[in-house]
Amino acid sequence: MAYAHWKSEKREDRAVFDLFFRKNPFSGEFTIFAGLEECLKFLENFRYSESDIEYLKETMPDTVEPEFFDYLGNLSANDVKLYAIDEGKVVFPRVPLLVLEGPLIVIQLLETTLLTLVNYASLIATNAARYRMAAGRRIKLLEFGLRRAQGPDGGLSASKYAYVGGFDGTSNVLAGKLYNIPVKGTHAHSYISSYSSLNDLKHETLKHSETGAEMNLKDVSLAWRSLLAEKLHLIHSEASDGELAAFISYAIAFPSGFIALIDTYDVLKSGILNFCAVALGLNDLGYRAIGIRIDSGDLAYLSCKARSTFAAVSQDFELEWFEHLQIVASNDINEDTIISLNEQGHKIDSFGIGTHLVTCQRQPALGCVFKLVEINGIPKIKLSQDVEKVTIPGKKSVYRLYGADGHALIDLMQRTEEPAPQSETRVLCRHPFQESKRAYVCPAKVESLFKLYWKDGELQQDMPTLEGVRDRVQESLQTLRQDHKRNLNPTPYKVGVTDELYNFIHDLWLQNAPIGNIC
Amino acid sequence: MAYAHWKSEKREDRAVFDLFFRKNPFSGEFTIFAGLEECLKFLENFRYSESDIEYLKETMPDTVEPEFFDYLGNLSANDVKLYAIDEGKVVFPRVPLLVLEGPLIVIQLLETTLLTLVNYASLIATNAARYRMAAGRRIKLLEFGLRRAQGPDGGLSASKYAYVGGFDGTSNVLAGKLYNIPVKGTHAHSYISSYSSLNDLKHETLKHSETGAEMNLKDVSLAWRSLLAEKLHLIHSEASDGELAAFISYAIAFPSGFIALIDTYDVLKSGILNFCAVALGLNDLGYRAIGIRIDSGDLAYLSCKARSTFAAVSQDFELEWFEHLQIVASNDINEDTIISLNEQGHKIDSFGIGTHLVTCQRQPALGCVFKLVEINGIPKIKLSQDVEKVTIPGKKSVYRLYGADGHALIDLMQRTEEPAPQSETRVLCRHPFQESKRAYVCPAKVESLFKLYWKDGELQQDMPTLEGVRDRVQESLQTLRQDHKRNLNPTPYKVGVTDELYNFIHDLWLQNAPIGNIC
Repeated sequence: MAYAHWKSEKREDRAVFDLFFRKNPFSGEFTIFAGLEECLKFLENFRYSESDIEYLKETMPDTVEPEFFDYLGNLSANDVKLYAIDEGKVVFPRVPLLVLEGPLIVIQLLETTLLTLVNYASLIATNAARYRMAAGRRIKLLEFGLRRAQGPDGGLSASKYAYVGGFDGTSNVLAGKLYNIPVKGTHAHSYISSYSSLNDLKHETLKHSETGAEMNLKDVSLAWRSLLAEKLHLIHSEASDGELAAFISYAIAFPSGFIALIDTYDVLKSGILNFCAVALGLNDLGYRAIGIRIDSGDLAYLSCKARSTFAAVSQDFELEWFEHLQIVASNDINEDTIISLNEQGHKIDSFGIGTHLVTCQRQPALGCVFKLVEINGIPKIKLSQDVEKVTIPGKKSVYRLYGADGHALIDLMQRTEEPAPQSETRVLCRHPFQESKRAYVCPAKVESLFKLYWKDGELQQDMPTLEGVRDRVQESLQTLRQDHKRNLNPTPYKVGVTDELYNFIHDLWLQNAPIGNIC
Repeated sequence: MAYAHWKSEKREDRAVFDLFFRKNPFSGEFTIFAGLEECLKFLENFRYSESDIEYLKETMPDTVEPEFFDYLGNLSANDVKLYAIDEGKVVFPRVPLLVLEGPLIVIQLLETTLLTLVNYASLIATNAARYRMAAGRRIKLLEFGLRRAQGPDGGLSASKYAYVGGFDGTSNVLAGKLYNIPVKGTHAHSYISSYSSLNDLKHETLKHSETGAEMNLKDVSLAWRSLLAEKLHLIHSEASDGELAAFISYAIAFPSGFIALIDTYDVLKSGILNFCAVALGLNDLGYRAIGIRIDSGDLAYLSCKARSTFAAVSQDFELEWFEHLQIVASNDINEDTIISLNEQGHKIDSFGIGTHLVTCQRQPALGCVFKLVEINGIPKIKLSQDVEKVTIPGKKSVYRLYGADGHALIDLMQRTEEPAPQSETRVLCRHPFQESKRAYVCPAKVESLFKLYWKDGELQQDMPTLEGVRDRVQESLQTLRQDHKRNLNPTPYKVGVTDELYNFIHDLWLQNAPIGNIC
């Protein structure tokens, strides 16, 4: 395509393209925009290497003129302007997330990469934000998805944008290193089953956190286990000694970070008992355990049982903090599981979420598209039998209009020549394609959504940190009314056009649609 | 986990882990194993860099002993042995794809990366193989998924393993360069709509392929369009001049590679007419067009109309090849669309498939797991309330037994100490968990599935090219009976264990499962 444009002497042609999506993912009514920083890095580094050009020379037809490769060799994104909505904001169908303005050929060459950078990042950030809303603010959400991600780098992107969307940490240590995301995790079932019995323990002692006195953690844990079994009406011979050994070894390695996976054998008969024994042993040595992870079974029931056990121990031994030990759950969890657990009642503090989060199983792609809206100053409309697929032509500005209560009312697109809407001033907002759908809006506040992010080969804005983008997601979600965000049958958020843009679209439509012949 | 093992002096512990999955994807009864070569590259390059260790020092608790970081700094996969099934083979639930043997700590550190490398590669290769079966051998399948892939590198992996699974090419030029996959593609709707009228054409002439005489392609195409409109009972004023201009410019750039996207305005009233006009114009200049792409509408109907138009032109102007012009279809296609198109009858030669292929929307993750089966020579079983999740303990060999007609009958797992099954000799195969499910099999041929791929830090096998793996997929699928491969209610392929392994599993199970107390 680039060669055909070049060959047609379209090197100087200037175009405007909009990147947008047509439908919110996950049956929802909002999307989180993410991936902008990576798009800007891509523009910064956009060039064809010598080996790229070598490859293209071999691959393209012999008839391709050699000057084209010289042209490619000198390409950069320096003549491109990029306008964008701030990364991390809530965004809606049809509103451009990116607007690219510049040489037609260059922008076409950027298209696919920009789409892939925005599509997946926004999808994961939106998914994560939905999990966050389902779980509530109190719950910790950990991303455990690398093993099931679509490729190792798919996994890295997932960790990054899950954090942006509102997760608290990741088990992907490389993501932790690269993006400064908190890393969290514990051991696997294989860690537990690598111990067969207490004889497998090579070390049994630990120094007291304050006195430094060395004590035998195995002995104290065993003593606690006997005592606890009686108190909790459990049979201590039914608890696995291999599991206890694994817990002790882990506690010796991480005395201040002891969190135990308790479902390898039997949560109620073995796991909880062994965990409490070691946690009380650690307490004797001046350390506080962190908690447990449950990775199978009825998570609502087991978490309640675990919490009531912790409460009983807390009371019996006057250890207030024991009641508040963390309970992490992590078995194939998705948004619906969390909602169902909330309905049942549970005592989980933290979810570890993998497959469903990173692959977005409910909808594994966000359908962003990249459409030509203007060429050499002439607005372009793409027609389609399907009205949903008709594009909104020309270069546009977009404003978000807010009500007096701070909630966003509508995103309003208009021609760039039009004056911006003013607060406290009535503006007519129209549905872009349904003639009779119109409303006057009198906004308390008006926000211009586009900023110029890239021009003359340089970044035009200060970029926020990942943490900053993450905060913006939550701030932006707060401006959205609850009924737009609810899980079941959310209300669509309105996206409209000014009267002038409405008329402009429909005039151009009529000009471009051929008149049929019925005969 | 690695530190806890290290701290427990498990540096010398040797373990065996199996990597396998429990359920075939896409409601099917087979899976294509892929990703092995990347696993081996990962083993080759496995090490912690100084900056990795710096990061871990900062991130891990202060109580971690500094010697652990020295240990990490010297780690490699040199002491690991990796056995694997050949990449590209059909594989089945419970049969290990990889077996890793070596230092416990090292193998645990490899786990997640190996899982992510196998999971997605196998998922995509299987998906692609299913599309290939649905489409049949005659049809060309092109991967068009980068824009919707889960991250840019997710897109690269998709291109690679779609090719392995039986696709013919990709629109991802970087994948073409890196993996030597044929690159295919045409222009976008934006290319067509960047031309408003015939005045936008800067060049109109082309040299005859043989005589070199320069002719005006616009003039001949316009003449053909008038003539054709009459012949085909179309109204040539209903055809878009902008579209015609775009086709002409593309034909001038790629006279021997002219393929046109014909649905920007109206396939039947504009696209086909303009395409045929330019194709006949090119023919006057000694070039043959390639064909058309349709990206919307009723693909079955439109492809039949296009084919009948080509046939009519072919007959009217005595151009036999014109009837056989390629028809590419590409709108949101998945396996079910292809099956439905087959039922309706269509004239499509080639599918361009994006979103559904690369994101595997029907099931976006293959659930590979990584389980400890032996430690320090002691076999390990992981028990679970759910029998499906009980692991098959110990180091195992796996044989594929074939019938006299060349079809695979069963995959048989056995303890490594057992002698291999012999052809023409009866062997008792048992279901691993259902006591009464047993059958004698008398194989015509026995194939050992595991090869030693990695030992002493070196590759132990000659690795096939990507092309070789791709061929192996089709060969391997041919050994599978049709009823295992069909789309609707396929028959499960049998995976069994020898009588000795059966008894071994169940003895160990009883030893490890605690006896409950009912009182």
